[in-house]
Amino acid sequence: MNSFEEFDYSSEKFSFGIWKKILKLVFKRKKYLFAMFLFVTGLAVLDILYPLMNSYAIKTFFSENPDFSKTTFFILGYVGISLGYLITVWGFIRMAGYLEIEVGFDIGNEAFRKLQILPFSYYDRTPAGWIMARLTSDSRRLAEIISWGLVDMVWGCFTMLGILIVMYIVNWRLALIITALLPVLIAASIFFRKKILNAYRKVRKINSKITASFNEGIQGIKTTKTLVIEEDKNEDFNKLTTDMKKNAIRAVIFSSLFFPTILVLSFIGIAFVLRIGGGFIVNARFGFTVATLYLFVSYTMQFFDPVMQV
Amino acid sequence: MNSFEEFDYSSEKFSFGIWKKILKLVFKRKKYLFAMFLFVTGLAVLDILYPLMNSYAIKTFFSENPDFSKTTFFILGYVGISLGYLITVWGFIRMAGYLEIEVGFDIGNEAFRKLQILPFSYYDRTPAGWIMARLTSDSRRLAEIISWGLVDMVWGCFTMLGILIVMYIVNWRLALIITALLPVLIAASIFFRKKILNAYRKVRKINSKITASFNEGIQGIKTTKTLVIEEDKNEDFNKLTTDMKKNAIRAVIFSSLFFPTILVLSFIGIAFVLRIGGGFIVNARFGFTVATLYLFVSYTMQFFDPVMQV
Repeated sequence: MNSFEEFDYSSEKFSFGIWKKILKLVFKRKKYLFAMFLFVTGLAVLDILYPLMNSYAIKTFFSENPDFSKTTFFILGYVGISLGYLITVWGFIRMAGYLEIEVGFDIGNEAFRKLQILPFSYYDRTPAGWIMARLTSDSRRLAEIISWGLVDMVWGCFTMLGILIVMYIVNWRLALIITALLPVLIAASIFFRKKILNAYRKVRKINSKITASFNEGIQGIKTTKTLVIEEDKNEDFNKLTTDMKKNAIRAVIFSSLFFPTILVLSFIGIAFVLRIGGGFIVNARFGFTVATLYLFVSYTMQFFDPVMQV
Repeated sequence: MNSFEEFDYSSEKFSFGIWKKILKLVFKRKKYLFAMFLFVTGLAVLDILYPLMNSYAIKTFFSENPDFSKTTFFILGYVGISLGYLITVWGFIRMAGYLEIEVGFDIGNEAFRKLQILPFSYYDRTPAGWIMARLTSDSRRLAEIISWGLVDMVWGCFTMLGILIVMYIVNWRLALIITALLPVLIAASIFFRKKILNAYRKVRKINSKITASFNEGIQGIKTTKTLVIEEDKNEDFNKLTTDMKKNAIRAVIFSSLFFPTILVLSFIGIAFVLRIGGGFIVNARFGFTVATLYLFVSYTMQFFDPVMQV
């Protein structure tokens, strides 16, 4: 096992060849992919519509002269949004689930077929445990990332873009606050993602070695017992898991810092919106009302949500 | 491989022996466990405090005679809540992450040690691939479920209980609505969880077989190539993955129905709260104000959140 060192992927920037193959697998399931996009886009639209509707309701019912003639409109509107949520949530879970299953199914089948075609020399060179790690946990993670990662990405992009557009239409002055925070948000995301990814890559690499060790432990049990080297083997294995632990803890430390950083940004955004928007209300400028302030606070909160989900 | 049928765990209700062993591993990390509980409880308290604070702010600033002397109190309060969120979110991610790593570390080491002690007869009877599946993906999932599952459970219980208590204190009449929905919520959760769990158990069982197949494909490559039975092997494998797909789709169908069901329940709750609470405001009964209505709508939404997260 020790003689086999996995090819170091971490130095490679981005492998187009591999992604082309994966994307081909995904596009084989166009139907699910298309339906998923549709449902997720619908969800993003509803996420943008809902605070707008609330804001309009506040303006209509809680102003100095409330207009109750529109009650039916609001009831129908809220029922519509509720139904929309039901359908889109049901749809995107089902479609992403289907896509995950189908892609996982294809990867599994292709991998097994490939196993039969590979020359003997491949099996001589590569430890069985290492192949096992690739075939089982890694391929499953790939199917998971493709389906649910795609959902998160599409939903995040549409929601953030939609919120920015509506904000600029309603009051571009306040929208500037969020735009100003955007570069910080992007920089923080890239910094933490890089750190987490690096730590995580090391974890997956050690994970392959651990899987290989398990397999060697099983296949080589006769040798181990005959030579009475159980303790040595345990020690070797312990070194691997300790190394795994160290790198996994690095990943956790960065993850645990990432969320609070985004929270701080959203708090700063809300504070500025409240301070400046509140000033607009007190001075009665730009037709700014409590309803608009509510809209901007809701949108600011929602704007940072996708970054934390990804 | 086909001669080896995994022991059927799905018929077993609950195995105390196994859980006692697992809990012992978890309690070895008392420090992390305790810190995690503390942070998660803090998070639940903040989740309950935040709408209360908002409601109080609405009452103070948006009434007929707004009281601006309390502005400092609110600024300090919101800054306090923000800081609280920062600390608790940072803390629970870090502690749950540590717990996951440490428990995974212990399970891995114990499993490897056990491998060395097991008699040869065990290796004669059990396919290597099957042992691999147990050692790798299953043990990792266990560590994940224990740490993050515990966080979800503690947070969910505290939040739901806390919300119910505060609701009863503020207005027990409206709190009765949520209490009335509780049995339906529990029944729906149990029904769907059972269905999803059953489908998922089958998936994990077939997954073990697929892992075993991969391993057999690698170990038996010489036989396969010598006998030219690649196509037969592919077909056998295809049957397994097709079976996997069928059961995984069952799990997805139930999952995709579960979320909308809980959404419907929360919509029903909000509709009743708005209708009855709105009536209280119009008739000026029980000192009910817009601020109280806001509080109940927020709490109703939050109340159903943990069920969807679990």
